[in-house]
Amino acid sequence: MSPLPEPPYYAVIFTSQRTPADESGYGGAADRMLELAAEQPGYLGVEGARGDDGLGITVSYWRSPDDIAAWRRNAEHRIARDHGRSDWYSRYTLRVAKVERAYAWQRDDGLKDPQA
Amino acid sequence: MSPLPEPPYYAVIFTSQRTPADESGYGGAADRMLELAAEQPGYLGVEGARGDDGLGITVSYWRSPDDIAAWRRNAEHRIARDHGRSDWYSRYTLRVAKVERAYAWQRDDGLKDPQA
Repeated sequence: MSPLPEPPYYAVIFTSQRTPADESGYGGAADRMLELAAEQPGYLGVEGARGDDGLGITVSYWRSPDDIAAWRRNAEHRIARDHGRSDWYSRYTLRVAKVERAYAWQRDDGLKDPQA
Repeated sequence: MSPLPEPPYYAVIFTSQRTPADESGYGGAADRMLELAAEQPGYLGVEGARGDDGLGITVSYWRSPDDIAAWRRNAEHRIARDHGRSDWYSRYTLRVAKVERAYAWQRDDGLKDPQA
Protein backbone atom coordinates (compact mmCIF):
# COMPACT_ATOMS: atom_id res chain seq x y z
CA MET A 1 0.00 0.00 0.00
CA SER A 2 1.31 3.41 -0.90
CA PRO A 3 2.02 6.24 1.60
CA LEU A 4 -0.70 8.83 2.09
CA PRO A 5 0.71 12.33 1.55
CA GLU A 6 -1.35 15.45 2.11
CA PRO A 7 -3.46 16.33 -0.98
CA PRO A 8 -3.37 17.75 -3.54
CA TYR A 9 -1.19 15.45 -5.59
CA TYR A 10 -1.70 13.38 -8.72
CA ALA A 11 -2.63 9.78 -9.47
CA VAL A 12 -2.01 7.84 -12.68
CA ILE A 13 -4.56 5.03 -12.83
CA PHE A 14 -3.35 2.37 -15.27
CA THR A 15 -5.80 -0.49 -15.88
CA SER A 16 -4.57 -3.27 -18.13
CA GLN A 17 -5.64 -6.63 -19.46
CA ARG A 18 -2.73 -9.03 -19.81
CA THR A 19 -2.38 -11.20 -22.89
CA PRO A 20 -3.23 -14.81 -21.98
CA ALA A 21 0.12 -16.52 -22.35
CA ASP A 22 2.97 -14.28 -23.42
CA GLU A 23 5.37 -13.89 -20.50
CA SER A 24 8.46 -12.79 -22.51
CA GLY A 25 10.08 -10.81 -19.75
CA TYR A 26 6.99 -9.18 -18.31
CA GLY A 27 7.72 -9.78 -14.63
CA GLY A 28 11.28 -8.49 -14.76
CA ALA A 29 10.28 -5.46 -16.79
CA ALA A 30 7.39 -4.62 -14.47
CA ASP A 31 9.70 -4.81 -11.44
CA ARG A 32 12.27 -2.66 -13.22
CA MET A 33 9.65 -0.01 -14.02
CA LEU A 34 8.61 0.17 -10.35
CA GLU A 35 12.26 0.59 -9.37
CA LEU A 36 12.88 3.23 -12.04
CA ALA A 37 9.68 5.17 -11.26
CA ALA A 38 10.70 5.38 -7.61
CA GLU A 39 13.89 7.22 -8.66
CA GLN A 40 12.02 9.95 -10.56
CA PRO A 41 11.47 13.48 -9.25
CA GLY A 42 8.02 13.94 -7.74
CA TYR A 43 7.36 10.23 -7.23
CA LEU A 44 5.18 9.64 -4.15
CA GLY A 45 4.36 5.94 -4.31
CA VAL A 46 2.73 3.12 -6.23
CA GLU A 47 0.31 0.30 -5.56
CA GLY A 48 -0.95 -2.45 -7.79
CA ALA A 49 -3.00 -5.63 -7.97
CA ARG A 50 -3.72 -8.17 -10.69
CA GLY A 51 -6.44 -10.80 -10.45
CA ASP A 52 -6.57 -14.31 -11.85
CA ASP A 53 -8.55 -13.01 -14.85
CA GLY A 54 -5.48 -11.01 -15.95
CA LEU A 55 -7.03 -7.62 -15.20
CA GLY A 56 -4.63 -5.41 -13.30
CA ILE A 57 -4.72 -1.94 -11.81
CA THR A 58 -1.57 0.02 -11.01
CA VAL A 59 -1.89 3.45 -9.43
CA SER A 60 1.20 5.62 -9.18
CA TYR A 61 1.23 8.89 -7.26
CA TRP A 62 3.09 12.05 -8.23
CA ARG A 63 3.59 15.55 -6.93
CA SER A 64 2.60 17.32 -10.18
CA PRO A 65 1.54 16.85 -13.81
CA ASP A 66 5.05 17.95 -14.86
CA ASP A 67 6.52 15.04 -12.92
CA ILE A 68 4.16 12.66 -14.72
CA ALA A 69 5.09 14.16 -18.08
CA ALA A 70 8.80 13.76 -17.33
CA TRP A 71 8.32 10.10 -16.37
CA ARG A 72 6.38 9.61 -19.57
CA ARG A 73 9.38 10.92 -21.55
CA ASN A 74 11.88 8.64 -19.77
CA ALA A 75 13.67 6.59 -22.44
CA GLU A 76 13.64 3.25 -20.64
CA HIS A 77 9.96 3.74 -19.77
CA ARG A 78 9.20 4.40 -23.44
CA ILE A 79 10.81 1.11 -24.44
CA ALA A 80 8.81 -0.76 -21.80
CA ARG A 81 5.59 0.83 -23.07
CA ASP A 82 6.41 -0.37 -26.58
CA HIS A 83 6.87 -3.89 -25.23
CA GLY A 84 3.60 -3.58 -23.37
CA ARG A 85 1.73 -2.82 -26.58
CA SER A 86 3.53 -5.41 -28.68
CA ASP A 87 3.56 -8.29 -26.17
CA TRP A 88 2.02 -7.96 -22.74
CA TYR A 89 -1.34 -6.22 -22.95
CA SER A 90 -4.44 -6.75 -25.02
CA ARG A 91 -5.77 -3.37 -23.91
CA TYR A 92 -5.35 -0.71 -21.30
CA THR A 93 -6.69 2.58 -20.09
CA LEU A 94 -4.75 5.36 -18.44
CA ARG A 95 -6.25 8.19 -16.43
CA VAL A 96 -4.51 11.15 -14.81
CA ALA A 97 -6.40 12.47 -11.80
CA LYS A 98 -5.84 15.11 -9.13
CA VAL A 99 -6.24 13.66 -5.64
CA GLU A 100 -8.34 16.08 -3.61
CA ARG A 101 -9.09 14.04 -0.48
CA ALA A 102 -7.54 10.96 1.07
CA TYR A 103 -7.79 8.97 4.25
CA ALA A 104 -6.69 5.68 5.73
CA TRP A 105 -8.15 3.19 8.14
CA GLN A 106 -6.25 0.48 9.94
CA ARG A 107 -7.38 -2.32 12.21
CA ASP A 108 -6.52 -1.57 15.80
CA ASP A 109 -4.62 -4.73 16.66
CA GLY A 110 -1.29 -3.37 17.76
CA LEU A 111 0.10 -3.54 14.23
CA LYS A 112 2.43 -0.63 13.56
CA ASP A 113 2.87 0.74 10.08
CA PRO A 114 3.50 4.44 9.60
CA GLN A 115 2.41 4.18 5.96
CA ALA A 116 -1.00 2.72 6.61
CA MET B 1 -12.53 -2.53 -17.60
CA SER B 2 -14.67 0.53 -17.06
CA PRO B 3 -15.99 2.80 -19.85
CA LEU B 4 -13.99 5.91 -20.65
CA PRO B 5 -16.22 8.98 -20.49
CA GLU B 6 -14.97 12.45 -21.43
CA PRO B 7 -13.17 14.15 -18.48
CA PRO B 8 -13.64 15.77 -16.10
CA TYR B 9 -15.24 13.25 -13.78
CA TYR B 10 -14.27 11.73 -10.43
CA ALA B 11 -12.51 8.56 -9.30
CA VAL B 12 -12.69 6.91 -5.88
CA ILE B 13 -9.53 4.84 -5.46
CA PHE B 14 -10.09 2.25 -2.73
CA THR B 15 -7.03 0.16 -1.84
CA SER B 16 -7.58 -2.57 0.73
CA GLN B 17 -5.75 -5.39 2.42
CA ARG B 18 -8.00 -8.37 3.08
CA THR B 19 -7.84 -10.20 6.37
CA PRO B 20 -6.15 -13.59 5.88
CA ALA B 21 -8.98 -16.00 6.48
CA ASP B 22 -12.31 -14.41 7.34
CA GLU B 23 -14.67 -14.95 4.43
CA SER B 24 -17.97 -14.39 6.34
CA GLY B 25 -19.98 -13.19 3.40
CA TYR B 26 -17.35 -11.03 1.73
CA GLY B 27 -17.87 -12.21 -1.86
CA GLY B 28 -21.63 -11.81 -1.81
CA ALA B 29 -21.43 -8.42 -0.15
CA ALA B 30 -18.81 -7.18 -2.59
CA ASP B 31 -20.96 -8.26 -5.54
CA ARG B 32 -23.98 -6.62 -3.98
CA MET B 33 -22.11 -3.33 -3.52
CA LEU B 34 -21.10 -3.31 -7.20
CA GLU B 35 -24.72 -3.91 -8.16
CA LEU B 36 -26.00 -1.23 -5.81
CA ALA B 37 -23.37 1.33 -6.85
CA ALA B 38 -24.37 0.89 -10.48
CA GLU B 39 -27.90 2.01 -9.61
CA GLN B 40 -26.80 5.31 -8.04
CA PRO B 41 -27.10 8.70 -9.76
CA GLY B 42 -23.85 9.81 -11.36
CA TYR B 43 -22.28 6.32 -11.44
CA LEU B 44 -19.98 5.95 -14.46
CA GLY B 45 -18.31 2.60 -13.92
CA VAL B 46 -16.06 0.50 -11.72
CA GLU B 47 -13.00 -1.71 -12.08
CA GLY B 48 -11.15 -3.79 -9.58
CA ALA B 49 -8.40 -6.35 -9.08
CA ARG B 50 -7.10 -8.33 -6.10
CA GLY B 51 -3.83 -10.23 -6.08
CA ASP B 52 -2.87 -13.43 -4.29
CA ASP B 53 -1.33 -11.35 -1.49
CA GLY B 54 -4.79 -10.04 -0.58
CA LEU B 55 -4.11 -6.48 -1.72
CA GLY B 56 -6.95 -5.15 -3.83
CA ILE B 57 -7.68 -1.95 -5.70
CA THR B 58 -11.19 -0.93 -6.66
CA VAL B 59 -11.69 2.28 -8.61
CA SER B 60 -15.21 3.60 -9.08
CA TYR B 61 -16.01 6.52 -11.35
CA TRP B 62 -18.59 9.23 -10.72
CA ARG B 63 -19.91 12.34 -12.40
CA SER B 64 -19.44 14.65 -9.40
CA PRO B 65 -18.34 14.87 -5.74
CA ASP B 66 -22.02 15.19 -4.77
CA ASP B 67 -22.72 11.79 -6.36
CA ILE B 68 -19.88 10.29 -4.33
CA ALA B 69 -21.20 11.89 -1.14
CA ALA B 70 -24.68 10.51 -1.80
CA TRP B 71 -23.30 6.99 -2.34
CA ARG B 72 -21.34 7.36 0.88
CA ARG B 73 -24.59 8.11 2.72
CA ASN B 74 -26.43 5.10 1.25
CA ALA B 75 -27.71 3.00 4.16
CA GLU B 76 -26.85 -0.41 2.74
CA HIS B 77 -23.41 0.86 1.77
CA ARG B 78 -22.87 2.08 5.34
CA ILE B 79 -23.65 -1.36 6.72
CA ALA B 80 -21.22 -2.97 4.27
CA ARG B 81 -18.51 -0.52 5.31
CA ASP B 82 -19.06 -1.47 8.95
CA HIS B 83 -18.63 -5.14 8.01
CA GLY B 84 -15.50 -4.24 6.09
CA ARG B 85 -13.93 -2.70 9.16
CA SER B 86 -15.08 -5.42 11.56
CA ASP B 87 -14.36 -8.47 9.39
CA TRP B 88 -12.89 -8.17 5.93
CA TYR B 89 -10.07 -5.66 5.90
CA SER B 90 -6.95 -5.18 7.97
CA ARG B 91 -6.47 -1.72 6.46
CA TYR B 92 -7.49 0.44 3.58
CA THR B 93 -6.96 3.81 2.00
CA LEU B 94 -9.50 5.83 0.07
CA ARG B 95 -8.71 8.69 -2.26
CA VAL B 96 -11.09 10.94 -4.18
CA ALA B 97 -9.55 12.33 -7.34
CA LYS B 98 -10.69 14.45 -10.28
CA VAL B 99 -9.89 12.76 -13.59
CA GLU B 100 -8.41 15.36 -15.91
CA ARG B 101 -7.15 13.24 -18.81
CA ALA B 102 -7.88 9.72 -19.99
CA TYR B 103 -7.10 7.51 -22.93
CA ALA B 104 -7.36 3.92 -24.01
CA TRP B 105 -5.30 1.59 -26.14
CA GLN B 106 -6.46 -1.68 -27.61
CA ARG B 107 -4.65 -4.36 -29.57
CA ASP B 108 -5.61 -4.23 -33.22
CA ASP B 109 -6.65 -7.83 -33.67
CA GLY B 110 -10.20 -7.52 -34.85
CA LEU B 111 -11.59 -7.58 -31.31
CA LYS B 112 -14.54 -5.25 -30.97
CA ASP B 113 -15.35 -3.61 -27.68
CA PRO B 114 -16.84 -0.14 -27.65
CA GLN B 115 -15.78 0.33 -24.02
CA ALA B 116 -12.12 -0.39 -24.55
